[in-house]
Order: sequence, then C-alpha cells, then structure tokens
Amino acid sequence: MNPTRIIIIGGSAAGPKTASKARRMDENAEITIYQKASDLSMASCGYPYYIGGFFDDRNQLLCSPTGVVRDSKFFWNAKKINTKVLTEVTILDRKNKRIEFRDLQTGERGTAEYDKLVIATGASPRKPPVPGIELEGITSLQSLSDADYLRKVRDEGKIKKAVVIGGGLIGIETVEALNLAGIEITLIELLPQLLTFLDKHMARLVEKYVQTKANVILQNGVSAFLGENGKLKAVKLLDGTEIPCELAVVAIGVSPNSRLAKDAGLKLGETGGIVVDEFMQTSDADIYAVGDCIEIPNLITDLPVHAPYGDLANLQGRVVGENLISGNVAKFPGTIQTGICKVFDYGVGSTGLSEHNAIKLGYTDLETVVNASLDKPGFMQGKLLITKLIVDKLTGLILGAQVLGPGDVSKQVAIWAMAIKGNLTVDDMATADLPYAPPYSLAIDHSIATAHVMQNKLKGLFTGISAEEFKEKLKVKDPMLLLDVRNPDEYEQMRMGLGEKLIPLGQLRKRLDEIPADKNTEIITWCKISLRGYEAALILQANGYTNVKVLEGGIVAWPWAREK
Amino acid sequence: MNPTRIIIIGGSAAGPKTASKARRMDENAEITIYQKASDLSMASCGYPYYIGGFFDDRNQLLCSPTGVVRDSKFFWNAKKINTKVLTEVTILDRKNKRIEFRDLQTGERGTAEYDKLVIATGASPRKPPVPGIELEGITSLQSLSDADYLRKVRDEGKIKKAVVIGGGLIGIETVEALNLAGIEITLIELLPQLLTFLDKHMARLVEKYVQTKANVILQNGVSAFLGENGKLKAVKLLDGTEIPCELAVVAIGVSPNSRLAKDAGLKLGETGGIVVDEFMQTSDADIYAVGDCIEIPNLITDLPVHAPYGDLANLQGRVVGENLISGNVAKFPGTIQTGICKVFDYGVGSTGLSEHNAIKLGYTDLETVVNASLDKPGFMQGKLLITKLIVDKLTGLILGAQVLGPGDVSKQVAIWAMAIKGNLTVDDMATADLPYAPPYSLAIDHSIATAHVMQNKLKGLFTGISAEEFKEKLKVKDPMLLLDVRNPDEYEQMRMGLGEKLIPLGQLRKRLDEIPADKNTEIITWCKISLRGYEAALILQANGYTNVKVLEGGIVAWPWAREK
Repeated sequence: MNPTRIIIIGGSAAGPKTASKARRMDENAEITIYQKASDLSMASCGYPYYIGGFFDDRNQLLCSPTGVVRDSKFFWNAKKINTKVLTEVTILDRKNKRIEFRDLQTGERGTAEYDKLVIATGASPRKPPVPGIELEGITSLQSLSDADYLRKVRDEGKIKKAVVIGGGLIGIETVEALNLAGIEITLIELLPQLLTFLDKHMARLVEKYVQTKANVILQNGVSAFLGENGKLKAVKLLDGTEIPCELAVVAIGVSPNSRLAKDAGLKLGETGGIVVDEFMQTSDADIYAVGDCIEIPNLITDLPVHAPYGDLANLQGRVVGENLISGNVAKFPGTIQTGICKVFDYGVGSTGLSEHNAIKLGYTDLETVVNASLDKPGFMQGKLLITKLIVDKLTGLILGAQVLGPGDVSKQVAIWAMAIKGNLTVDDMATADLPYAPPYSLAIDHSIATAHVMQNKLKGLFTGISAEEFKEKLKVKDPMLLLDVRNPDEYEQMRMGLGEKLIPLGQLRKRLDEIPADKNTEIITWCKISLRGYEAALILQANGYTNVKVLEGGIVAWPWAREK
Repeated sequence: MNPTRIIIIGGSAAGPKTASKARRMDENAEITIYQKASDLSMASCGYPYYIGGFFDDRNQLLCSPTGVVRDSKFFWNAKKINTKVLTEVTILDRKNKRIEFRDLQTGERGTAEYDKLVIATGASPRKPPVPGIELEGITSLQSLSDADYLRKVRDEGKIKKAVVIGGGLIGIETVEALNLAGIEITLIELLPQLLTFLDKHMARLVEKYVQTKANVILQNGVSAFLGENGKLKAVKLLDGTEIPCELAVVAIGVSPNSRLAKDAGLKLGETGGIVVDEFMQTSDADIYAVGDCIEIPNLITDLPVHAPYGDLANLQGRVVGENLISGNVAKFPGTIQTGICKVFDYGVGSTGLSEHNAIKLGYTDLETVVNASLDKPGFMQGKLLITKLIVDKLTGLILGAQVLGPGDVSKQVAIWAMAIKGNLTVDDMATADLPYAPPYSLAIDHSIATAHVMQNKLKGLFTGISAEEFKEKLKVKDPMLLLDVRNPDEYEQMRMGLGEKLIPLGQLRKRLDEIPADKNTEIITWCKISLRGYEAALILQANGYTNVKVLEGGIVAWPWAREK
C-alpha cells in the first residue's frame, strides 16, 4: 500500500500537533506542513510575556520542552515531517485533490497532491477601517514578528506612550506587557466594558484594577490614526479626543482565515469559521480543519462559536491526527469557552455562559450570586477571590462561572469547568470533595462556599442584591436603611460612605430598636464580603423584617468608588 | 412553640459549624456547645504552619476571617450560641434525652436536656503501647496544646534532634515544621512506604525528596522510649537501633472518639466510627454525628471509611445544621478521600482509589499510567508534576489520581476530584476545556496530557512499564536493550546508568541498524519524561519490533538512585 499523503496547511499550533499525532499513528505516512510564516510551532500565547520581560530568550517561544528549536530540521529528524516554511498555499483544488503553493521568497510556484488535507490556517487580527492605519508605530499582537517588534520597543526603551485598542484578552495582556516595559498606556474599548466574556459587574472590577496601571477609556473607538512623516503621533477617538502616542496596538479581535476553504467551496458558518463535524471533518470527507479557522459548538448552547484558544487548537489537532490515519474514531465535542488571563497580580477567568450571554440566548430562569473570600487562610497569606456563579434556577445545573482577583483563580476556573463538564448541580458542588490543606485552600474551598451561597439563595434563605441593582436603587433614591455590620475599626479603614448605619453583627440583636419599626422597611446589609451581612439579614428576618437584602460580595466586590 | 433545644458535643470544627448553620436556620433555637478543651473553633490543620513559623500570632488559629477570636463571647454575641468550654460530657442518656457533664476546672457536675443532639467529639491520636511513653518530650500533634508545646520548642531553640513516628499526613507535615525550626529529624514508619494513600512508586518519590531534609527509616517501629530523669533521651526501634533525641512526635493515626456514643448504645461501624446515614443521623433519630468521630461511605466503593478531614467535617456540619432545624432535607453523600499535603517545596495529593487499594477491594480490570510534565511552560518557570492515574479498563471511568511535585498539585488534584465527582471517563478528560494561559498551564494541561497517555495505553498504542516492574526486571537480569533517546548533553547532566544505549530520538530512524536484529528483543525506552521515549517506541514498533516498552514517567519519575 502506498503511504498516505497528508498535507497540512498551517504550521503554528493545530497544524504541527495534527502532523505529530498523525506521525505517531502511522510511521509511513507522507506528511507535509505548509507554513506561510518563517517559524513553526510558535508558543503564540507566550508573546505578551516575552514582550513584558518575563523571559529574554526568544528561542523559548519556539523550543520543545527540552530546549530544541522546532524548526524544519527538528520536524524532519525527530518526526519525519516535511515542512515548507515561507510558503503560501494559494489554491485548494478539491477535484484533483491538489494544492497550489507559492514560495514567498523566490516567488516560485508548485503543486502537490494529497490523500487527506488539513486546514489549520488560523485567524488574523481585525483592523479598524480608519485613516492612518498604515502609519509606522501601529501593530497588532498576533504574529511572532509582531512580538519581535514590541519586544524591540521594550529593549530600546524609547517609546513613552502607547494606546492599546481593544479591551479583550489580548488587549489586556498587552497592557500588562507594555506597562512592564515602562510605557504609559491608554486602553480604548468601544463597548461599555472590558473583557466581554465577563458580566458587567465583574468586568467593572477588572477595569477598576487596570485603572491603577493604565488609563482606561470605555465606549469610545478610534476614528483616525494621526501621524507625522509616516510615523504615528496620536490616536484620534470617536469623540474627537486626541491621545498622543508613539505606539498603538490594535487588539479588536481576530477573524478566521477561511478564504482558501471558502474559495474551494467548503462550507463556512455564520461566524466565518469553517464548519466541521465532531470528527473535525469539513464538508469534504478528505479535508479536516482545526484551530482558529473553524467554528465549533458551544457544548451548553449547542450553537456554533469561533473560539480561537491555543488549548483547543491542540486538542483538535490530536483528534484529527488520529482520524487521518484510523478513520473517524476520535471526537472533539466542542467547547464551554473556558478562558483565563493574567492582568498584573490579578487572574481573570471564566467558563460556561455569562449571565448576559445566557439571557441573550433566551435563558429565562437563571439565578446568580457573587461570592468573595480568600483562597486560603489569612495565616497562609490567603488572597482575595471574587466569583460570580450562574445556574439554572429550576435544576440547579451550573451554567457558568467567572472568577477574578489576586487569589488562585486558575484552580477555581478549572473546578467550575469540570463541574460543567460533569453536568453537576449546585447541590453536587455543595458537598464536593476537594483537596484541603491550609497552604492550598480554606477548609471550605471558595468554590464550595460559592455553591453554598447559591444554595441558600435558591432555597430562599436570603435575598441578594447585586452591586449593579444596588447602584440603580441609589440613583433613584429609594428610601432604604443601609446597614454595615462590621466592626468600627474595619469601618474606619474602609467604607462605602453612602449614609449607611454601622451596627456590628455582635451588637445587632441588642440594638434592634435602632432599626425602623416598620417591618416593611427596605434594608440592605453588608460587611466586607457579606457573610456577616447575610447573618445580619437572617436576624432581621427572624425579627419580622420582610424586605431585607444582602449586598452580594460585600464591600470588596463593590466595583465603584467608595468613600474610603 | 418552645424553641428547639440543641446540644452539640464538641467545639473544634464540625461542632461550631453545625451550631452556626443551625443558628442561621433558626434564630430562636437554644444552641449549646460543650467543649472539653479550652478553645473553640481551632484551625487545627494550621498547627504545623504555626510550629514551622509561617506565622507567629497564635490568635490566627482561633480567629474569624476578620481577626476576631472565636471565644465564648464571640459565639454568644455574633451567633447567640452558648458554649461551655473545659466541660466534658460524661453520659449520654438517650432515654431521658439528657446529658451529664462535668466542669473540668471545678469538678462540678450538671445535666442538660436536648431535643436534638449532635456528637462532634472528634478523634484522638493513637499511642504506641511501648515503655517510656510517659516521658517528657513525647507528644502528638492533635490539640492546640500540642501545637503550643511544639511552637515553644521552636521558639526556645534548645532541642537539636527529634524523631517523628509515623509517615502519614501529620507526620510528614511535622517533619517540615520541625525542620524549619532547625531541628534534625528522623522519620520512622512501620510500613514499607510513607503516605499510604499513595501507591508505592509515588510514595517512594516523596520519600526520596523527604530524605533530602530528614533521615527516613521505613519498616521499623518504636519498641521503647528511653529516658533519663523522666526526660526522653532516645527512641529505640524494633530492630534495636537507638536514635538519640530530645523530642518525639507520635503521628501514627487517629481513632474516632466514639466511646460516649457506644456507651449510649448508638451503632458504631467497623472502623470504630459512629454510623450515620446520608442525613448524618445516627441510629437514634434525635442524634446526629459529624466530623472525625464518624464513618462515612467512600463514594466509589460504597464501603465505610474513617476520613478525618477538616473540610469534610465542615461540610457535614453544614448539612446537620440544616437538618436539625428543617428535618432531613440536606444530604452528605460521602467522600472520595481527596487529600493534599505540603512537604517543603512539594505538594502531594490524591483523590479516589489508589491502585493498591483498588486491588485490595477486588477491582481486577485496572489500567494505570504515570505521567510527568511541567505545570506551565518553561519560559514561565514551569515546575514538575508527576501524576499516576488509575482507571477502569473496560469503561475508562476515572477511579483515582495521585499527583506530586513542585508544580501546582492542588489544581491537578481538584481537577481529578471533580472528574470523579462527575463520573467522567478518560475520553471525557481527553477533550476537557480547562483554563489555559501561559502563566497558569501548558497549552495541553498536565491533567489532559495524562488522559492522553492513558488513552494511548488503553488503545494499545504503546506498552508501558512502571518503574517498579522495571526494577524487578533489572533484578532478575532479563536480557533487554535499554534505550535512552535524549540528547547527549541531557545524558551528560542526568542519567540512569543501567548500561543503557543512547540514541537521540532524531537519529533513531537512521541508526536502526544499531538495534539488535531480533525483532523480539525486549526493549525499554525512555527520556526525561518519556514523551520522546514513547515516540521512539512507536518508531521501533513500526519497524517490526514486537516487545518494546516505555518507562512510564521517564527519568524524573524514577524513584531510586541514578548514576547521575
């Protein structure tokens, strides 16, 4: 039997993973990767950290775990995989099972035939269609050459001011990287919030934190890039503001590179990504597609999404590598869109559905809570975690979680991602058996405590009020009793300053006469994280008060300004 | 209606949690905690870190998250809970729903009646029945006074040598604490391994690491404590060895304090723990029991176990607090025995069944793998993780995982604990959607990579050999080709030195003539973590070799001495 001829278009993440797995499945297949860029197997998610100076050796972005650069020689010697770099595939001729390609250095053209083909062409950064986009000093952060450019900016140390356009994952990571390079940053976002995978309140907490490191401007976009002698001098915003800067990084999202597939008549989806089935097979049975150029189902909604994440690209590559050789035996079911990013000392992560996405998709019976606590005991230097949990009210099924703070966010998001994977409910989570020791967690892990708060809410033991709802109430000046139940020394250090009354929890039972006699009085209780606030609400309810609400997440989860 | 009279016996962890939850469920219940010790709500899992000097303020072991000591005054003011400390409950009179108690300071006796009673009497450290056990200088690490004693040892700095008896969780944590106090330690364990929740090979890796900090003696016990003027001078072992020391910490496990329950005719289980149902109700419907004094089902085997973990005690307390007030509405289903401990720079954790336990329980169709990788990329200072995964061979259901190393063990164990909770299989885990960004994980998370290795093994793509099996083979001097496929510089730095041949993976295809022509030759391949070892095995298999095995986990998971 002739060896199977496998052509893989794209050599960044999903492509090489596919090739390597296919090789491991079949020592004799003829495997060739066509790669437009000059490098292979780049750790592109590492670019912000290279730019930010977490490490200095560029080769580390291209190395195998043992420090060997994954170049063409490596792929041939270690994996018997042909790689053609700086080579663009220009035509996919499905009828003749053939591709046409062009050597980007020599301009030379060639053709090659395949038995099986894999499209792993990735995604490209979107560019705002505004004047001045061609000026020197404007870049994205997508390719290794972008990273090289921005690392040079760091190393030269000449640039003082930069604008980052787009408050998504890459934008936020770029803010950190450039800030660490000593550059003054303005972050521009067209929407009213950063990180749209978060609900507004959670995003607002991130914004508040990022503002300590950069100037953040929301609900404003770029109308033009202004220059002098071909060099960027300022960014002009939609509202006319001009922000002087020598560097602008555009990070307004990416679009799947699906033109080749489209031209070849393969089916694309509404997201613009190539449509694949669970075997990662396109509408042509001999062609698979993987990575940032495809769309995949969201496993909760079953709707197709474009989810350009490096981890998924690798998982998909492994599935395709196996299916290329063994027929369709391996499946990639889809995504719950789990993501995380580092923003200075904060982690910010999410999995499953956000509340606003769930509502947009027609979910009507949702319950949410915000919970705040340390990740481990104070005596082990525990750090704050704030979680918003979204569940289906009737079944208690966990639909999504957002976690942020200086604490161990990564573990929390992993726990919720696994909970969703396992179709677990709030009740399941309330008695989860997680690893506990003081160096790692509280006796009741933050995730479990969050489930407990949700359980209490679902059982009607308390009524919560979100920071957003509370803010609205404050605006309309509803008559309310605001009750802070912390101790006076805590109140001195930090407080809302909204005209609240201070009655420490331990005194509340004795001082009930200070609460308005009208049992229908609307009362909002809180403390630092709203655990004592909850206990205060229970005491008030037990004493006949019928309209008591607990401010969810307490003072630490309040995303707007405080008096102190 | 009269308020419900609730008596809780025990005020350490499960007791106060039960009381607090009951109070939150019912503002009017009369709740009283009887506590034999002088303190309440002690963070007993924090003792080793207090002794080790991670923090100096003893109050932190007794504080609420906001720094208020949880003493009787706190419980009354904040929670309207009566507490009687230094008070021992001597008789439980179920017929009359009454307890008798004794004030340990005054000797005064009294009685109290209950509507509902909760037994939360905890567990006591076992003592070896050997001569000299009464000498000064011998302690356990169970109570706060034990912690005070050992902290004083640290602060005084007089003691130079100590023996820790018992290589379980507490023993290991004590080794770290005392080592950090500058004391030279010998750790004695009767069994052939430390930490019996681990399989031998994994335990051996811990032992190897602990040996860099303490003298570890296995398969030896204490035959006598030797003293002079009432003070400990040495520990005499079963084999006659005498180890001079001024301090001995006994940590050979704990037994449930179930005497009171037994005397009252409540049902005890084979573990000695009080038998409860899923509502935590004992054989008397008015009596619940929680925490270290009970036995609970292992959720995988459905067999009762004694699982004295602080996190479970708290979860059980919350369930009972609710059931006391609302009738039996909340359930605690059981445990998968998830645990973790810190040993200097290592984390060591486990969840579900170990291989040896599974075999002991009659599981016949198991598959296991050992996988080693970094927790995040090298350029983000990734650290090593070694995982042993145990699954059911037929269904692929995950039965257990053990994780250790300097990497982020806590997240890994949490992921596997959630996988078991969700009844997930290896295939489910192979496409799990976990949070990925370089500061937090590899593109393919260590847990998912472990699932991939297992998947490959289950599909018969390779044959693994465990370090233990390999060691046995080396003993009987089976003729084998040992093949290290790393690069020469790696070989220079670190190697097994078992007569292995070095052929770097990238040269293997060209140097196949150096492999014995007999295709039945037994060949063992490896590299640092055995990923390249696996690829080498595939190449050899593709070239007709029929008896190739990959050393699981590679050199880093080899738990015995190496040449280099």
